[in-house]
Amino acid sequence: MTEHTWCIPPLTTGITDILGARIDSKTKPIGALGLLEELALRLGRMQGTTQPELRGGVVLVFAGDHGLAAEGVSPYPSSVTAQMVANFLIGGAAINVFARQNGLDFKVVDAGVAAHLVPHPALIGAKVRAGTRNTLHEAALTAHEVETCFERGNEIVDTLAVNGSNAVLFGEMGIGNSSAASLLMNALTDAPLKNCVGRGAGHDDVGLARKQAILAAVRSRHGATNGPRQALAAFGGCEIAMMTGAMLAAAERRMLIVNDGFIVTAALLCAARIDPRVLDYAVSAHCSAEFAHQRMLTALGQRPLLDLGLRLGEGTGAALVWPILLAACGFLREMSTFASAGLSERVEEVRT
Amino acid sequence: MTEHTWCIPPLTTGITDILGARIDSKTKPIGALGLLEELALRLGRMQGTTQPELRGGVVLVFAGDHGLAAEGVSPYPSSVTAQMVANFLIGGAAINVFARQNGLDFKVVDAGVAAHLVPHPALIGAKVRAGTRNTLHEAALTAHEVETCFERGNEIVDTLAVNGSNAVLFGEMGIGNSSAASLLMNALTDAPLKNCVGRGAGHDDVGLARKQAILAAVRSRHGATNGPRQALAAFGGCEIAMMTGAMLAAAERRMLIVNDGFIVTAALLCAARIDPRVLDYAVSAHCSAEFAHQRMLTALGQRPLLDLGLRLGEGTGAALVWPILLAACGFLREMSTFASAGLSERVEEVRT
Repeated sequence: MTEHTWCIPPLTTGITDILGARIDSKTKPIGALGLLEELALRLGRMQGTTQPELRGGVVLVFAGDHGLAAEGVSPYPSSVTAQMVANFLIGGAAINVFARQNGLDFKVVDAGVAAHLVPHPALIGAKVRAGTRNTLHEAALTAHEVETCFERGNEIVDTLAVNGSNAVLFGEMGIGNSSAASLLMNALTDAPLKNCVGRGAGHDDVGLARKQAILAAVRSRHGATNGPRQALAAFGGCEIAMMTGAMLAAAERRMLIVNDGFIVTAALLCAARIDPRVLDYAVSAHCSAEFAHQRMLTALGQRPLLDLGLRLGEGTGAALVWPILLAACGFLREMSTFASAGLSERVEEVRT
Repeated sequence: MTEHTWCIPPLTTGITDILGARIDSKTKPIGALGLLEELALRLGRMQGTTQPELRGGVVLVFAGDHGLAAEGVSPYPSSVTAQMVANFLIGGAAINVFARQNGLDFKVVDAGVAAHLVPHPALIGAKVRAGTRNTLHEAALTAHEVETCFERGNEIVDTLAVNGSNAVLFGEMGIGNSSAASLLMNALTDAPLKNCVGRGAGHDDVGLARKQAILAAVRSRHGATNGPRQALAAFGGCEIAMMTGAMLAAAERRMLIVNDGFIVTAALLCAARIDPRVLDYAVSAHCSAEFAHQRMLTALGQRPLLDLGLRLGEGTGAALVWPILLAACGFLREMSTFASAGLSERVEEVRT
């Protein structure tokens, strides 16, 4: 089996000064648009233009099941994954509401749901297996299955790019996947396990303690893993591995990656351990209320744009931040300059 | 002269439990939409319905000049106020870009610009005087002028309400108005002056020290003021007083007030000192980078939704938060419930 490699281009450097001057020429005090100015600069460097534009934004919700769910790591049963996919396809979930409102296209990716899903125009069939194996007893995925997830993530992003999109908003659904994300975080950062585990879909203290104990047992079972591929094989899941491949593919094509909550960020962590340049193309939408999310973002050097106490996943944070990303491109393209508006410059130099 | 009074209705209480149950019935873990759930609850209580809806959102940018600008409290000359109004009217400012993007109506209110402004469909002529008097030497406004500002703010909001709007996004423009906001904050909270003064449109350390010294001299000149009307008369400006009246009028009509940066928040502070129930109808869009803004928000018990390092004013923060407010209404109206989607409930109770 060949390991897929990606070739991620660096951000354009030759354009940085021109972009900076363009931002500073706009009718506002220097720096007054704060993080929007940083975003505009980075989007310009991603796209290699002084007029960056976000086209065809698509929310991709990667769905998959986890064998570990049988141990009670989530307050919901595995069957909820397929039920929520059905809810996505009738447009009744939070992510549907936010995607519709913000003019985003929306697709669900069946990366590894443990149920047969009826075809639907908004469903991308990419199932690698019907749920991962139970990582408490064996590896969740084989090395070959991980690689297949990467390949399918790649293909999905390729199709989006061909259709003219330059921005992917990542979301996920999978009962048990906050456990997989915690295990990946523990394996790929220096954070001890207890700093990686949160309440997920809403554990009380008893449920959280049980989840922590189960994940500690999983860690003992597998011992040290070597790198993101091994960690993904050990802990899963299909949806996280497929997002990893999709993110690397997006960066390779200079597309914007909109990062979401704890589980999507675990995929970004895996991607960054394969090639850290993926982070140049990633914007983190929000800091979720999940306990370990801020720590994982910090480990990746990511500064989240929103902090609304969300802990739903599905790409909801990514969809909510979309208008702010559009605004960053918008001011750069549409605002007057001091010269074009005939505005007076600062006078402080004269006074002091 | 009669002082205008407002009668602000309390938030509907009878509906709180029904709204809470409705939010909890949606296909998501309890509380997983964080602040959006709090917003949905409050919007429902404002409008007295389980199906709150934001209609006809309008950005109102209140513009006015300040006699104190002659002392060099801003790095820009007073003439920039009228120049920026012209920029607003040709659609070239940041607020125009963000309002257009988010489908918001946009009006500039001439509350007290020190120049004749040519009529324009997007300009509401409400000038009370052509710039305030220089508060370093005399009261910026008479008591009668303050009351006139309140009345005109009232009338403007009345017209919006008649036209079917139920949400006002507040913005401002006025060279020197961060100084007026600092003086109002010092007069109406227990914060010492140095904790109320920031860099405004972008002072360096020398400029900031000069601004602080001038504002200290203004405070000595006027001594203690008694309440928001006296403070507004002493320090101005027309745009802040008119926003104060407009906010009270909006709350009286159960309309949403979207608060913006430091200067708009100073108007909200004045309004809250007249009737604290105005705060029930106010949502604070963001915490600006202006030094004293977080303190002023805290003094009002307001929790800002965004923190993007903005310090531009114009209502830019308010316009950027608009899609998040729409999302709060949207999930409540459009999401499936566990029952309607046929989803399994939590299983934790069974396990523990």
